[in-house]
Amino acid sequence: MAGPHPDVAAARRAVRAALADLPPGARVLVACSGGADSLALAAATAFVAPRERLLSGAVVVDHRLQAGSGEVAARAADQCRALGLDPITVREVDVDGGARGAGAGGPEAAARAARYAALDEAAREAGASAVLLGHTLDDQAETVLLALARGSGARSLAGMPAARGLWRRPFLGLRRTQTEQVCGAVGLEFVRDPANTVAGPWRAADGTPLRRAAVRERALPALAEALGPGVVEALGRTAHQLARDADLLEALAQELLDRASAAAGEPGLTLDAAGLAEAHAALRTRALHAAALRAGATPGALAAVHVEALDALVTRYHGQGPVPLPGPVVARRRCGRLTLAPAGPAGRPET
Amino acid sequence: MAGPHPDVAAARRAVRAALADLPPGARVLVACSGGADSLALAAATAFVAPRERLLSGAVVVDHRLQAGSGEVAARAADQCRALGLDPITVREVDVDGGARGAGAGGPEAAARAARYAALDEAAREAGASAVLLGHTLDDQAETVLLALARGSGARSLAGMPAARGLWRRPFLGLRRTQTEQVCGAVGLEFVRDPANTVAGPWRAADGTPLRRAAVRERALPALAEALGPGVVEALGRTAHQLARDADLLEALAQELLDRASAAAGEPGLTLDAAGLAEAHAALRTRALHAAALRAGATPGALAAVHVEALDALVTRYHGQGPVPLPGPVVARRRCGRLTLAPAGPAGRPET
Repeated sequence: MAGPHPDVAAARRAVRAALADLPPGARVLVACSGGADSLALAAATAFVAPRERLLSGAVVVDHRLQAGSGEVAARAADQCRALGLDPITVREVDVDGGARGAGAGGPEAAARAARYAALDEAAREAGASAVLLGHTLDDQAETVLLALARGSGARSLAGMPAARGLWRRPFLGLRRTQTEQVCGAVGLEFVRDPANTVAGPWRAADGTPLRRAAVRERALPALAEALGPGVVEALGRTAHQLARDADLLEALAQELLDRASAAAGEPGLTLDAAGLAEAHAALRTRALHAAALRAGATPGALAAVHVEALDALVTRYHGQGPVPLPGPVVARRRCGRLTLAPAGPAGRPET
Repeated sequence: MAGPHPDVAAARRAVRAALADLPPGARVLVACSGGADSLALAAATAFVAPRERLLSGAVVVDHRLQAGSGEVAARAADQCRALGLDPITVREVDVDGGARGAGAGGPEAAARAARYAALDEAAREAGASAVLLGHTLDDQAETVLLALARGSGARSLAGMPAARGLWRRPFLGLRRTQTEQVCGAVGLEFVRDPANTVAGPWRAADGTPLRRAAVRERALPALAEALGPGVVEALGRTAHQLARDADLLEALAQELLDRASAAAGEPGLTLDAAGLAEAHAALRTRALHAAALRAGATPGALAAVHVEALDALVTRYHGQGPVPLPGPVVARRRCGRLTLAPAGPAGRPET
């Protein structure tokens, strides 16, 4: 007797491994867009979940960014229903700023934020223990390249985690083409989202095509041509190694911050400068970044240049004035102590 | 009075900073190929060294891989002499395996090894405290991308160090085009090394063009087109951050290895498995890598898959047999201890 298609088997193995820690009776939701990756995920989950005594449903997010998005969502929901997933919900979301909007992270970031909020709400309402996302090894490679292009550190280069909180990504080890094979093998017709292409309707604030689409269609193929076809897998291995490094370095930086946080008066944060100064730069800069966030700095806007200015207050202090951070937060050094506190309306620290 | 061309000023600043720790009277050698980067470095060093009371010479390496290489080397030496550098030496090297050779790392690695050996010898004979290399930010970005394509960890992604031992790279913050501007501004004609292009004579063992040339001419331009022109600088920032991380992680891994090295009998190495098992994976895998090298494993051939097998002996031990490593070295677990030792002629551990 012939076994399942090898990619079907690989998809099922991946889902089984991702759900191994859930207790019998737990419910998981598949986030399904109707694309090959999430339909393959729905099919594998529909097969695995009952055998592992888990309940499985699906949630389809309709971003309403294109004409016909409602039909695409309804069709994806029908396919999930036919696979035996239950319950199925469709969530319509409003993407902040619209399809061509120019939020802080552009339309991709706005759509992502709206999608995760909708999934989170659906999970809570369904009492789900996990939401499964269809990101593949190709998505991971694109994420790593995008982080590289920003000049980011280990955490960004580590890409998307396989599991964090509610979110699980069973397919980070599978190629996108494998998910297409799965759909073919089990007879699922998938859609290719035109919004995800360079030719698609979305544009960054400067009018250029979406960066992820450009990475997918241009940069990764050029890299593969120059460096060989294994480049996507190599980016995945790099991400895995850097994730491990980042985990340890962030834990050690947290310990450093806790030690340096001699007096943590609300609403600010006070740190011993000497304790920070003698720490390794890899930990000190991470601790300062974490301290700025704890004091109320805006996550997306806090950049390396801000951490650099904080670091100068600690290691190259020559009487320089307060350092303004987005939030707004202000950091100042006084009597060997670094204080980070929300700034007043005009950017001055509150007194 | 007009100051120097901004790129000339930037080159001089970079050289001054790179030499700041040398005592008066110390001698530095510029490694010069006749290309824009190393000629600009020679010019900046000829300007800075006397003002910092340093002695500066140059060494030109002739790889003899192409017809006319001797003339190129002689011309570069003449240019360095005209700049006032003294002494100037030209070193002819034999690249192992020839221009199309297939050593472990291909012709690029063979040429690099021969070049560094020749520079090292020249530095010793001249009593030089430092050898200056002309690598630019573009070279660094290429190095990072090549490491990415191998799926390497933080140390490889950290690229080339600005200073290590004898070697210093003052221009890691300068673009290649800036070094061309410097040459133009001070009237130096530079050569473009045809061996460094995709169309050049060198081929990898599989007949494809050199990977670095392919990255330079194809992959980086495609990335810049997809992600914006700042991608080279971003890769440089990433390298800098990961270098810092790798420094700390390697130091911590060394401490772990020293602790686990309860009984380090020559010629092998014995480690306490339990001590390793409870350490963080980011440190344990680095410690195992270092242990394998210390036991005599071949640096270039020791790969992630070997470290993975060693790690399984430590963390997932179920009675599996010895792990063979290139060198050859054999690792085996017995009575809660991991022993790494050179293998006998047939790959068996010596008794």
